[in-house]
Amino acid sequence: MEGEPTLRLRVFDLNCWAIRYLSKRRQERVRLIGDTLRQESFDLVLLQEVWSEQDYSDLRVKLAGCYPFSHYFRSGVIGSGLCVFSRFPILDTLLYQYSLNGYPYMLQHGDWFCGKSVGQVLLWGVTAPLLSLSLQLHAEYCREKDAYLPHRLVQAWELAQFIRHTSKAADVVLLGGDLNMHPEDVGIRLLRGWTGLRDAFAEARRFEGCKNGCTLVPDNCFSNKSELLPFPLGIRIDYILYKAISSFTVKCEELKTTTGPAPGTDIPFSDHEAVMATLHIQRQGQPVGAPPGTADLALADVVTEARTEVGVGLRAAQRQRYSSGRMAVLALLLLLLQAAAALGTLAGLGTEQPFPKFSFCLLAFLALGVLVLTTSLHMFHTMEVKMLHGTEDQMWMALRALQERP
Amino acid sequence: MEGEPTLRLRVFDLNCWAIRYLSKRRQERVRLIGDTLRQESFDLVLLQEVWSEQDYSDLRVKLAGCYPFSHYFRSGVIGSGLCVFSRFPILDTLLYQYSLNGYPYMLQHGDWFCGKSVGQVLLWGVTAPLLSLSLQLHAEYCREKDAYLPHRLVQAWELAQFIRHTSKAADVVLLGGDLNMHPEDVGIRLLRGWTGLRDAFAEARRFEGCKNGCTLVPDNCFSNKSELLPFPLGIRIDYILYKAISSFTVKCEELKTTTGPAPGTDIPFSDHEAVMATLHIQRQGQPVGAPPGTADLALADVVTEARTEVGVGLRAAQRQRYSSGRMAVLALLLLLLQAAAALGTLAGLGTEQPFPKFSFCLLAFLALGVLVLTTSLHMFHTMEVKMLHGTEDQMWMALRALQERP
Repeated sequence: MEGEPTLRLRVFDLNCWAIRYLSKRRQERVRLIGDTLRQESFDLVLLQEVWSEQDYSDLRVKLAGCYPFSHYFRSGVIGSGLCVFSRFPILDTLLYQYSLNGYPYMLQHGDWFCGKSVGQVLLWGVTAPLLSLSLQLHAEYCREKDAYLPHRLVQAWELAQFIRHTSKAADVVLLGGDLNMHPEDVGIRLLRGWTGLRDAFAEARRFEGCKNGCTLVPDNCFSNKSELLPFPLGIRIDYILYKAISSFTVKCEELKTTTGPAPGTDIPFSDHEAVMATLHIQRQGQPVGAPPGTADLALADVVTEARTEVGVGLRAAQRQRYSSGRMAVLALLLLLLQAAAALGTLAGLGTEQPFPKFSFCLLAFLALGVLVLTTSLHMFHTMEVKMLHGTEDQMWMALRALQERP
Repeated sequence: MEGEPTLRLRVFDLNCWAIRYLSKRRQERVRLIGDTLRQESFDLVLLQEVWSEQDYSDLRVKLAGCYPFSHYFRSGVIGSGLCVFSRFPILDTLLYQYSLNGYPYMLQHGDWFCGKSVGQVLLWGVTAPLLSLSLQLHAEYCREKDAYLPHRLVQAWELAQFIRHTSKAADVVLLGGDLNMHPEDVGIRLLRGWTGLRDAFAEARRFEGCKNGCTLVPDNCFSNKSELLPFPLGIRIDYILYKAISSFTVKCEELKTTTGPAPGTDIPFSDHEAVMATLHIQRQGQPVGAPPGTADLALADVVTEARTEVGVGLRAAQRQRYSSGRMAVLALLLLLLQAAAALGTLAGLGTEQPFPKFSFCLLAFLALGVLVLTTSLHMFHTMEVKMLHGTEDQMWMALRALQERP
C-alpha cells in the first residue's frame, strides 16, 4: 500500500439456478451456498436466479452476521431473481427492466415471465462509493439459429446505456452476472466497448478454476450436456466486469471459479460455476478504464455489427406484426359475416337456417379466440418493433458521435 | 454577467394532445406549434403526447433550421409520445419505462398502451452538460376516488430514483412535463423532496400567464369542462423543474404560460397550456439545489405518506391477484369436470348424453375464455404486486437512510 490506502474487495458472483419445483436439489444447494458464503465472508455477493423469495429470506437470515446489508429485486411475474448481499452499507438501489425480453407465448423458454432486469446498488465502500450491478440477459437456446439475438443485443445496449448514464454516481463500477454470451460475441464486445468495462478474467494476475474461465462446463452434474456438445471444455457466460470512473484504479489480483462439487459435498452450488474476484481499488492520479480514442474505430465496427443484427430482428418483428394484424382483420371479418348471417336469420330473411347451429357457434367462438389472440400478438409485436427501432436509432446516434469525435 | 459567463436558456414545454383520429384539429395545431417554435426560437423544446411519428417527422423537418438536434422516444404499443428539440447537440439519450402504468383492460383510459416513460437527453449546453427530461405520468381520471394513485406514486418514485442515479452525468438537470399532479399532491412533494428539484413557477422572478400558473384551464376551448368544475381557475399539472448538480447555480428569470388561443388564430396549441421558462445558468462556488439536512424530517414525512398510499395499492393488487387466481382455478375445475363428463360419454359409461351438445360446448368455450382471461389478469396483478412491494421496500430503505443521517 502506497499513498492512499487500498481497498481489497472480494466479490462472489453466481447464477444459483434456484427455480422452485424445477431445479434439482434446490433447497440443499441454497443451504450450501449460504454456508459457504458465511464461511468465506466475501465483501460483496451478487446472485442471479434466486426466483423464490423464501430462498432469499432464508439466505438473508443466515448471512445477517457477515453481510448485514442485502437487497432483493422484484419484477415481472416470477421475479428478476437478482439479489445482492454486502458487507458495506447499501445507500441506494435502482432496478432497470429491459424493454424487450423474449415472447410471452414462448412458455417453454419462460424468459418473458421473469422480467429480466439489471439491479443496481450503490454501496459505501469504505473510501469511495461503488456501483454494483447484478444482472442476467436473455438466455441463448440455440446458438446456430438464435431467434433471441436481437433481444439480447437490445438488452446489452440498454445495459451499456444504463451504466453510462448512472455510473457517474460512483467511483468504481462493478458488474457481475450471467450475460448468456460468449466472450467474443457481439453483445459483450458492444457492452465492453461502449462502457469501457474490463473483464476480470482477462485482467486477473492469477487465475484458478475451470479452463478458460468457463462457467458452464460438462463436468458439472447439473449442466445440460447436449447443449455443451460443441464445446467440450464448456463456455464462459458468467462475468465479473469493472471499471474506475474518477481518480481511482482497479486491478484484479485474482480470479477463481468453482470446479464442480462444493468442498465436503457431492453436489455443486448450481448448474453454473461461481466466479470469485479479488480486486484492488486505489485512489490515484488519472482515471482509467474509459475507452481510449484510438479504439473508436473498432467500437464503431462493433456498434455497426450490433445495429445490423438489431435491424434483422426489426424486420422479423415487422413481418410478425403484419401477419398477426392480417390474421386479426380476417378473424374480425369472419365474425362480422357471421353476425350479419345471424341477424339475417333472426330477421327472417332466409327461409331456414343455412348452417347447423352448433358448427355456426363453434366457428364464431374460434373466430373470437383467434381475434383476441392475434390482436394481443399484434400489440406485442408493435411494442417489439418500437423498441428495436428505438435501439437502432440510438445506435445510429452513437455511431455518428463516434465518427464525429476528433 | 460577472465572473464565469451565464448561459441564458429558454425552455418550452407542452403537452401537445396530438392523438391521431381522436384529438380535435390535431394537424392544424401541430402546424401552429411548429410555426410558433420556429418564430420564437427557444433553446430547448420538450413535448409530450406527440403520439404520431408522422407529426414528429413533420415538426422535425419544419424545425431543422432552428433546432438542429431532436429525438423521439419510442415505447409501448402506441408510443411514449415524448420528443425533444434542441439548439444544443444531443450527446446521448436514455428511455426509462415506468414499471407500472395502469391496467391493460382499462381500454377507455389507455395509459397502459402508451408505455409511459421518461425520456432523457444529455445535451452539451455551451459550457456544461445539461440533463433534460421530458415525461408524463399516469393521468388522474377521478380525484375523489383515484384508483391510479399508487401507480402514479410508483412512477414518481421511480422518476425520482432515476434522476438521482443519472443526474451526476450533468451539471444541470432540467425536467419538463405533464406530471398529472397538483402542486400540493404527495407525488410531487415526493419527487421534489427526494431529488431536490426546484419548481420554476415558485422560483421565477417574473411570472406571466394563467392565474396560479395553471396549465389546464376552463377557458381553453379544448379542455374538459366537467373535470375542471371543482377548480374554476384551473389546475397546474405541467411543470418545469430544475436543479444544479455541481458548482453551478440555476435561477429562473421568467416563467410564462400561454393563455388560450395562439396569437393570430382562434385555437390554442393544445388542451393544456404551454409552459415557458427563461433560466440563468452560471458556474459558481457551491452547489445549490440539494435538499438541505434540516428538510430531512419533512422529507421523511412525505416518504411515509407516499409509502402508505403505495401500501394501500399493494393490498388492493393482492386482493385482485387473489380473486383472479381463484376465478382461474374455478374455470379450470369446470373445464376438467366437462372433460371428464365428455370422456365418460365417449367411453359409453352413460347410457345417453346428459346435456344438450350445444350448451355443453358453449359452457366449455366460456370456461376456456374465463380461464385465459383470469390467468392473464392473475399474471398482471402478480407483476403489479411485485412492483408495488419493491417500491414499498425501497421507500422503507430511504426512510431508514433519512433517519440515520446525522
